[in-house]
This record gives sequence, C-alpha cells and structure tokens, in this order.
Amino acid sequence: MTADRDPSATSVDAAWLERATALSVNGPAYGPNPRVGCVLVGADGTMLGEGWHRGAGTPHAEPAAIADAAARGHEVAGATAYVTLEPCSHTGRTGPCTDALTRAGVAAVRYAVADPNPEAQGGGAVLLARGIDARHVPYGPAAQVNRRWLGAVEHGRPWVIAKWAQTLDGRTAAADGTSFWITGEEARAHAHGVRAQVDAILVGTGTVRVDDPELSARPPGDAAAHQPLRAVMGLGATPGAKVWRDSHAVQLATHDPHAALTELASREVRTVVVEGGATVTTAFLRAGLVDELHVYVAPALLGAGTAAVGDLGIGTMAGALRAQDVTATALGVDTLVTAFFQRGQI
Amino acid sequence: MTADRDPSATSVDAAWLERATALSVNGPAYGPNPRVGCVLVGADGTMLGEGWHRGAGTPHAEPAAIADAAARGHEVAGATAYVTLEPCSHTGRTGPCTDALTRAGVAAVRYAVADPNPEAQGGGAVLLARGIDARHVPYGPAAQVNRRWLGAVEHGRPWVIAKWAQTLDGRTAAADGTSFWITGEEARAHAHGVRAQVDAILVGTGTVRVDDPELSARPPGDAAAHQPLRAVMGLGATPGAKVWRDSHAVQLATHDPHAALTELASREVRTVVVEGGATVTTAFLRAGLVDELHVYVAPALLGAGTAAVGDLGIGTMAGALRAQDVTATALGVDTLVTAFFQRGQI
Ligand SMILES: NC(=O)c1ccc[n+]([C@@H]2O[C@H](COP(=O)([O-])OP(=O)(O)OC[C@H]3O[C@@H](n4cnc5c(N)ncnc54)[C@H](OP(=O)(O)O)[C@@H]3O)[C@@H](O)[C@H]2O)c1
Ligand SMILES: NC(=O)c1ccc[n+]([C@@H]2O[C@H](COP(=O)([O-])OP(=O)(O)OC[C@H]3O[C@@H](n4cnc5c(N)ncnc54)[C@H](OP(=O)(O)O)[C@@H]3O)[C@@H](O)[C@H]2O)c1
Repeated sequence: MTADRDPSATSVDAAWLERATALSVNGPAYGPNPRVGCVLVGADGTMLGEGWHRGAGTPHAEPAAIADAAARGHEVAGATAYVTLEPCSHTGRTGPCTDALTRAGVAAVRYAVADPNPEAQGGGAVLLARGIDARHVPYGPAAQVNRRWLGAVEHGRPWVIAKWAQTLDGRTAAADGTSFWITGEEARAHAHGVRAQVDAILVGTGTVRVDDPELSARPPGDAAAHQPLRAVMGLGATPGAKVWRDSHAVQLATHDPHAALTELASREVRTVVVEGGATVTTAFLRAGLVDELHVYVAPALLGAGTAAVGDLGIGTMAGALRAQDVTATALGVDTLVTAFFQRGQI
Repeated sequence: MTADRDPSATSVDAAWLERATALSVNGPAYGPNPRVGCVLVGADGTMLGEGWHRGAGTPHAEPAAIADAAARGHEVAGATAYVTLEPCSHTGRTGPCTDALTRAGVAAVRYAVADPNPEAQGGGAVLLARGIDARHVPYGPAAQVNRRWLGAVEHGRPWVIAKWAQTLDGRTAAADGTSFWITGEEARAHAHGVRAQVDAILVGTGTVRVDDPELSARPPGDAAAHQPLRAVMGLGATPGAKVWRDSHAVQLATHDPHAALTELASREVRTVVVEGGATVTTAFLRAGLVDELHVYVAPALLGAGTAAVGDLGIGTMAGALRAQDVTATALGVDTLVTAFFQRGQI
C-alpha cells in the first residue's frame, strides 16, 4: 500500500505547502539532510504551529512544528500536517517523524515531495497503515529547494557543481599561466556565497600547486559562514599548501571522478563544487558527473591561453553537451551563467 | 564664437529634449544620417509642431517640425526649437537647417548633442551670430540613440560590431567544422533584427566557401526589412555563392581591416556587423577596430573545435581586452552578451 499522488490537490493545500516551503529555506543548504518545512493546521483552518529542520542532529520539521504548537498552547489532535518532504519512517540521529505525527494525533498529512532516500522512504505508507490520511500532493517549488539534495539521493553520489571563471572567449588562464583576476569583486563575492552553501570544494593538485588557494568561504559580511570540506584530487603531494592548514581537508588520491565522489559521499558530502583546474573539470564532464554549471563570464577577450574545458571526445556540433534551465545574472561587469545537466544526459 | 554648454539646463529643457529623443527613434538606425527629433514650443509652453528625420534624402527633423506646425495652423515665430542634434549649417541633400530655423523666426534653439560631423558642425555658432539664442544642453539619452553614428563620425570610419555565436566554452565550430546550429531560434531572430539596423554585413571568404550564407536580414514578421550591403573580405573568388545573387554585394579584396573599412565608408556605410569567421573577426580585434561586441552564448560545451577568437598577441591576464557597458540578455536558452570597447583601448 502506498500513498498515491493526489490529483485533487486544492488551492488550500497549495497555500499551506507554499508556507511550508517558505519555512524550509530557513534551514541550511549544506549538510547531509534536506531542507524541510512543516505547518500544522486545525480543522477550522487556523495555523496551530510551524517549524523547519535546522540541520543534522537537530529536530526534523514535524517535531519542531508540534513543539511550536505546544508552545502556543494549541492542541494538535485532528490537525493536518503540511510538510515539504514525505515524513521519514526511520530512526537516524532523531526518531521517526511518522511516530511523532502519530503520537500527536494528527488526522491528515500532505507532503509535497516523495522521499527518494531508500533509508527514509515509505513514511506515507506507514502513516496510511495507521489510519492517518496521508497523501502526496506534488508542489514543485518544494522540490526546487532541495534540487541538489534530491539529485544526490537519486544519483547515489554527491551533486556536482562545476564552477569556473572565464573570459568571454572561454579562457581560464592566459598563455603565461596568469589567471588573476578574470572576474570582478561582485562575481567573486557570489562564488564565496555558493561555497558557504555546499559541503565540499574540490580542486586538482595542479591548482593547489599553481595558485595555493585557501578554498574557504568568505562571503562579504558573513564572518561566521559555513566552511566546506576542502578536497584536493590527484596523486601528487602538496605539503605546506594553505589547504592543509587544518584537518578540514582531504586528499582524494585518484584520477577517477567516480572514486573521488564515493570518498566524498562517505564523508556525508551531498553537494560539491568542482572549481578546477581545467584538467579536473574536464574529467568530471567526460565522466557525465556534472549536474550544474556555474560559469562566471568576464567581458574580456584573450585569444589564447588555457581553454575552460578540455577535450571531451566530441567531434561534431550535434554532439555538444547541452544544458537546461539556464539563467544569466549580471554581477558587476561580469555575467554568471548557470545551467543544469539532466541525469544520464552526459 | 561657439554655442557653449549651458550649465543651467532646466527640467523644462530636459522634458522637451526627452520628447525630441522619443521622436528621433522613429527614424531608421541604418543609413548615412543620424536619427534626429525636433519639437517646437511656443513662448507659453505649448507644443507647436514636431518632427523627425526619416533617412537620407528626406527632410531633416527641424524642417519636418516646422512643416508639422504649419499643418496644425501654428505660428512658429518666437518659438524655441528642441533638437536632439546640433542643427546642420551645410547644404547636403537638403538645405541647411540653420536657414530653415532662421526663416521660420524661432527665437531660441536647445540641442542635446553637438554635431561632430566636420561638414555639418558649427550650426549653433551660425544661429548665435544671427541673434538666435542657441545653446548646447547636453542630454545623454539623445546621444545614446546615435551612439554608433556618433562613433563612426568621431573615428572617421564605420562603427564595427563583431558578432558571433559560440558555445559557453568559446567554440564557434566543432572539430569537424560543423557550426549549425549553436544557438536557438530566439537568438537567430535577434541577430536578424540587428542586421536590419545596420548598413553592411561583413564575412570572410572562408565563411562564404564553407557556409554559403544568404547574409540577408530576415527578422520574424518583417518581410520588408532593410537589407544591408553584403561584404566579403579576402582575395579568393567565390563564384556562384548566394551572396552574389544581386548587385547589393561587394568583395573587399584585402586582408587589411583598415582598408576594408575605408572601402565600406566610401559606400556610405556607417555601421557594419562583422560576422566572422574567426580569421576575419580576429583581424578586426587585433587591429583595434571593434567598437561593439554581440556574443550569443549557447548553454553548450564542446571541449574542442574552432576558438571564437584567435591569437591576439596577448600573453598575460593583465593584457586581456576588456569591454564596458555590458548587458546580458536571455534569448530562449541562449544568452546575448553585448559590450563596448572604448576608442583607442584596443
Ligand atoms: N579560472 C578559473 O576558474 C580557474 C580555476 C582553477 C584553476 N585555474 C587555473 O588552472 C590552472 C591549473 O590547471 P590544471 O588543469 O593544471 O589543474 P588541476 O585540474 O587543478 O590539476 C591537475 C592535476 O590534478 C591531478 N588529477 C586529478 N584528476 C585527474 C585526472 N582525471 N586526469 C589527470 N590528472 C588529474 C593531476 O596531478 P597528480 O599528478 O597530482 O595526480 C593533474 O596534474 C592554473 O593556472 C589555475 O590558475 C583557473
Ligand atoms: N559561430 C559563428 O558565429 C560563425 C560565424 C561565421 C563563420 N563561422 C564558421 O567559421 C568557419 C570559417 O572560418 P574562417 O576563419 O576560415 O573564415 P573567414 O574568417 O570567414 O575567412 C577566412 C578567409 O578570409 C580571407 N581573409 C580576409 N581577411 C583576412 C585576414 N586579415 N587574414 C587572413 N585571411 C583573411 C582569407 O581568404 P583569402 O585567401 O580569400 O584571402 C581567409 O582564408 C566556418 O566553419 C564557419 O561555419 C562561425
């Protein structure tokens, strides 16, 4: 028995799922867990309590909303729970949400996204079996919030963002190897903001040798930003480099992008930004392991130097790797082009 | 004696110059003449007549506005003329506008842009000498309308737009030479709209040989679009190619971009789009003869193939050609990046 998709989703459902989605984005984008929001609504349509998940090791959204209702002095029995993700039915760092909802006596559950996590899924069916009216009411924006996390779970590997800065003509370094600065301050600030939302940054040993980067997240005005794991891919040693300043760093001693991702997954990495150089980025592209592109394009021309992307084994225009869901964002004089590769396409 | 810039421009001046500028854009962007608008305003602040220049061989904006006032039965004597460009004082295809304004008895003239054309300039001083209160009241948007025309006159050569379509990683053709289609329909429609606004399209003999393009302006829904001159640069013959279908085409038998532009200027070309291939585009960039970039960027990666821009003799990042006034426009899944190179910078 499974909780089927409900074709009769009402505008009331959509309105509460919109609220739950707005709550969900209060949670951190990084970390092993998805961002989830929950609203408890009484039979008379009043909001009884709301909550969201604040990250691994803290309460899930459903118990947070139940606690909020209690703090407001509201009785939850008979209420409907609107949740952005199917309630979990397994015991991880916290107890199953299906049990929390059952204990609280909720009468119905509407969830926007079915949980693809093999360990956590089936919560809808568990609730149904206990006589709770649980239904999957698909709500796209809720899935968007967890796009990277859902992709990671579905692919069974970390979600990969390939990021680089290039001139308009596709060069990431000049003929003499210089690459500072291609883009301006706004673009660099944006890239630091992205780093603060991911679990790991990966570069090749070549970039460590040439640039000796810090690989820290330094978004302007946020001294307490989340710091991703620093991952260096390659066989060579780079003793004394800044990336090794503390233990929040790992060498991935391989040339195989699949192996690198397996190692990162074992460290609970769900999202990694591959920041180059061209050798490493090209290896991920060739392996079909890039989900999202972030290309910062400067209004500059070099005419020579390192190409942003190396040989992909593509000989003809019809074979070009094509990305979807493109956005172009002005960042000072630069333009950030983001786009997504669908699973299995490349 | 010259008509000086007036630091005391009023908001009334700005409002009428805004109207004159709005009129000016009714004129064609192509052709040897600038786009000019004119409004005649009575001493009591009422609009008496307005007009704009409809292209070479037709009345200039000032006589058009005077005729409009007459058609409305208004007396122009004592009025103020707001014009987007300094009135001309020379006899070209039509008589000098300074004479038309004098005959009509206008008391004052406010013009937004001083005429840089050595043949036409000095109109403000001529009017002043005749006792008419003529003043230059700088109004930026009026100059923007004629940015390409003003650049062409100031540089003493056609304004050059370098246009190409590329993958995100800067390739204009795949390894096997295929280049259809890099970008989608919206991007191609936009490029046809640009062609309909310029005097000439230039490509190298290589592009004619490989692609045999029509080089016509086919903006969607505009079967009567202006058709630019087709110019083929290079020494080789390309008999039977589509570009030679009628006489509205010219071979520029040279490898020197300066010589090519001189030949185009002799045919009254003020704006030319250089559409490639990479050999010809690179030659214009190296010669410092590109004023404006139109790069259509597809969300695609090739990793190999023809680079959009060939060797520019630049070896280090600090030497990169940097463009200004960048805009990024979404065209379907593609992004158009436009930017300008300042005179003398490259
Ligand atoms: N513009 C940008 O956004 C940007 C970003 C980063 C870097 N860069 C520039 O890129 C340049 C460095 O580029 P790069 O390509 O040499 O550096 P890289 O990709 O960072 O490192 C290449 C090295 O990584 C190891 N490696 C890991 N996986 C590999 C694989 N699948 N195949 C082959 N080798 C693999 C190899 O070293 P081992 O022998 O150690 O295995 C290889 O030499 C620098 O100039 C840097 O400034 C630019
Ligand atoms: N993606 C795009 O936007 C786009 C646009 C256009 C073309 N393309 C592709 O580009 C490829 C053709 O590129 P291409 O570079 O060979 O063509 P090209 O630049 O159109 O033509 C090169 C030829 O023009 C002549 N030429 C003119 N000025 C020159 C100079 N300053 N230096 C050297 N030669 C000069 C030479 O031929 P002579 O011996 O006759 O003098 C030269 O072989 C085709 O695959 C085409 O599909 C792509």
